[in-house]
Amino acid sequence: MDIDIHDFRDIDPGDRVLMGPGPSNVPARVIQAMSAPCVGHLDPYFLSVMDETQSLLRFLFQTDNPLTIPVSGTGSAGMETCFVNLVEPGEEVVVGINGFFGTRMTDIVRRVGGQLIRVDGEWGRAIDPEAVRRAVQGRSPKLFAFVHAETSTGVCQPLEDIASIAHESGALLLVDMVTSLGGMEVGVDSIGIDAAYSGTQKCISCPPGLAPISFSPAAVKALDSRKNPVASLYLDMSMLRSYWGPERKYHHTAPINMVYALREALRIVAEEGLEERFARHHLNHKALVAGIEAMGLAMFVPEPERLPTLNAIRIPDGVDDMKVRKALLNDFGIEVGGALGDLKGQIWRVGLMGHSSCRKNVFTFLSGLESILRSQGVKVRAGALEAASAVYAEA
Amino acid sequence: MDIDIHDFRDIDPGDRVLMGPGPSNVPARVIQAMSAPCVGHLDPYFLSVMDETQSLLRFLFQTDNPLTIPVSGTGSAGMETCFVNLVEPGEEVVVGINGFFGTRMTDIVRRVGGQLIRVDGEWGRAIDPEAVRRAVQGRSPKLFAFVHAETSTGVCQPLEDIASIAHESGALLLVDMVTSLGGMEVGVDSIGIDAAYSGTQKCISCPPGLAPISFSPAAVKALDSRKNPVASLYLDMSMLRSYWGPERKYHHTAPINMVYALREALRIVAEEGLEERFARHHLNHKALVAGIEAMGLAMFVPEPERLPTLNAIRIPDGVDDMKVRKALLNDFGIEVGGALGDLKGQIWRVGLMGHSSCRKNVFTFLSGLESILRSQGVKVRAGALEAASAVYAEA
Repeated sequence: MDIDIHDFRDIDPGDRVLMGPGPSNVPARVIQAMSAPCVGHLDPYFLSVMDETQSLLRFLFQTDNPLTIPVSGTGSAGMETCFVNLVEPGEEVVVGINGFFGTRMTDIVRRVGGQLIRVDGEWGRAIDPEAVRRAVQGRSPKLFAFVHAETSTGVCQPLEDIASIAHESGALLLVDMVTSLGGMEVGVDSIGIDAAYSGTQKCISCPPGLAPISFSPAAVKALDSRKNPVASLYLDMSMLRSYWGPERKYHHTAPINMVYALREALRIVAEEGLEERFARHHLNHKALVAGIEAMGLAMFVPEPERLPTLNAIRIPDGVDDMKVRKALLNDFGIEVGGALGDLKGQIWRVGLMGHSSCRKNVFTFLSGLESILRSQGVKVRAGALEAASAVYAEA
Repeated sequence: MDIDIHDFRDIDPGDRVLMGPGPSNVPARVIQAMSAPCVGHLDPYFLSVMDETQSLLRFLFQTDNPLTIPVSGTGSAGMETCFVNLVEPGEEVVVGINGFFGTRMTDIVRRVGGQLIRVDGEWGRAIDPEAVRRAVQGRSPKLFAFVHAETSTGVCQPLEDIASIAHESGALLLVDMVTSLGGMEVGVDSIGIDAAYSGTQKCISCPPGLAPISFSPAAVKALDSRKNPVASLYLDMSMLRSYWGPERKYHHTAPINMVYALREALRIVAEEGLEERFARHHLNHKALVAGIEAMGLAMFVPEPERLPTLNAIRIPDGVDDMKVRKALLNDFGIEVGGALGDLKGQIWRVGLMGHSSCRKNVFTFLSGLESILRSQGVKVRAGALEAASAVYAEA
């Protein structure tokens, strides 16, 4: 336990171009807001910040749900919050599994004592709603849980049909929006999603530390009708509701400065406008894909199922995953992600999220990757920058 | 869900003198460190920050425990982490209850399925170790859980005798250090504490958002010998250990900027030195008490059982709690805390924690309180500032 204080230098991370699976780069305004003086968690000023943050979150989730708050943990805490509040021991839960985060959902269902109904899909493909329909035939699950944007593979899961099947079965629909919220249409109310969660450090471009969550009136009813206490006090939405709602009942000390940061990041989202923001994410994604394919590389996910926010690129045969990522980081300051689980060594995960989704980053990455692959003796076709430029010229 | 962006102004909390039950005021260096560029949660630079933060936390906890990390939630998440990892359904847990946070422990024990053995004490007094001994006679609890610094009452619980009784019973000892860590001796290793948790926003003077935790080798052994999965994936210490340890296995996206802030706040603690820091907290507390008593007001807790970090002052008969606190906040920018639970309206909770524990704050508070009480027609004796000054003169 003895230390020498001289071993600890000033913090100095250097500048990174954050194009991994999150965090994304944080705008200066968000950092400035986060640096405002800390006040108490029941200070009248902070209470107004809480109310405004809730309004801005409703705007982003495209919902009127009163119970829309940031939970004081990261995106994984958001996932856990939804399951621990909405599932009681013995209740059936349908989980769509086509990646790391769907798999994690099954782990959480087991821990909360739910009965799992698996709908397995291929990693890198969306799940077929017909498979969902077959899986629930003759059963009455409490909850359907699907990942909208599977960060581990770059797959976008269409939700409309699944929402219909869930509601026909009398079940609630829970959706993971960690890598979609703020970067693409989520339509909580229009699709009929009962519980949604996300993280702050992806398409919202706020530092990690909070998990935005929204519960529909039906989800709140399920919460209020529980027979057993919620296993987690920290994540108990009925207690969190009393702190974030008009009662202002002490539950825990909210991460004040993180909430300042989130509010500012959401203000930036609202200033840009949702449609404009989604169009920007889509355009930069298209340009990246055009460049990658022009280079002779291939995307992992077939075209109609790709996320605009997380681009999974197949690593060409014989190319060393780590060697390329290290060179990107050390020579270009660019972070991209490796794969999780069985896909390790097979794909790179390139995020274009929030503030990081910009034309400059698309070109910095394409040129950096091309240069590194060439210097490592990998055959690459010319023309990536031309192809990406053409996408912007057409827009 | 429609909003008008013009309704949301720049963040501007104003300056507060934070003398409530936390958060305390945050030094500028901590804010600066928190504002450094965000990097990825597996970035080599961040991994070195994680290692350094762990070393600094071990120094602060006064322990060699390898498993010493900040959990990605606030102090309440720290409490839950300890119980959910160390208690399995049906196991007996001794809880000392003499305030709000001891009471909260009983709620968590119930949620994790533990069998509660209560040791009730008076709110405002330490718990008698003999009552603990009697409560566990003939039983073999898995865990003893006590609050070192009861934030709701200002009581300091001596731990040496309780540690002996716990270990004689073959149980682990868990201690809540939310309002003591960084402000007074905690001696995790010297006392023989098996699990300890705290928050960052009190005597460490970092913004809220992380919960420092330390597990002894015996606690780790209990974790490794579990028969049931830990009910929480987010707070599962065996998974967190794989991320914070040499494996660096992805578990969740750590709150990067909060960890920067914590590391800097701990560096400041180490530069000051533990003994010097504890002496400072003690001195400012003594001066505050001298001033309060000179004014004719009374402390809630008898002298030998008082915390130096959280000072509970009895509200004189006929004085309006809220009116005084509002005047302190609006006219002096001073935040102090009201009471929790049954003590509501009976005490003020005045924190002198971390950066907020300074001579200036003692005098600002004493003069502000005296002025407000006088202007509200309350009879107050003269001489508070003289009495407080005498304490500093003697030191």
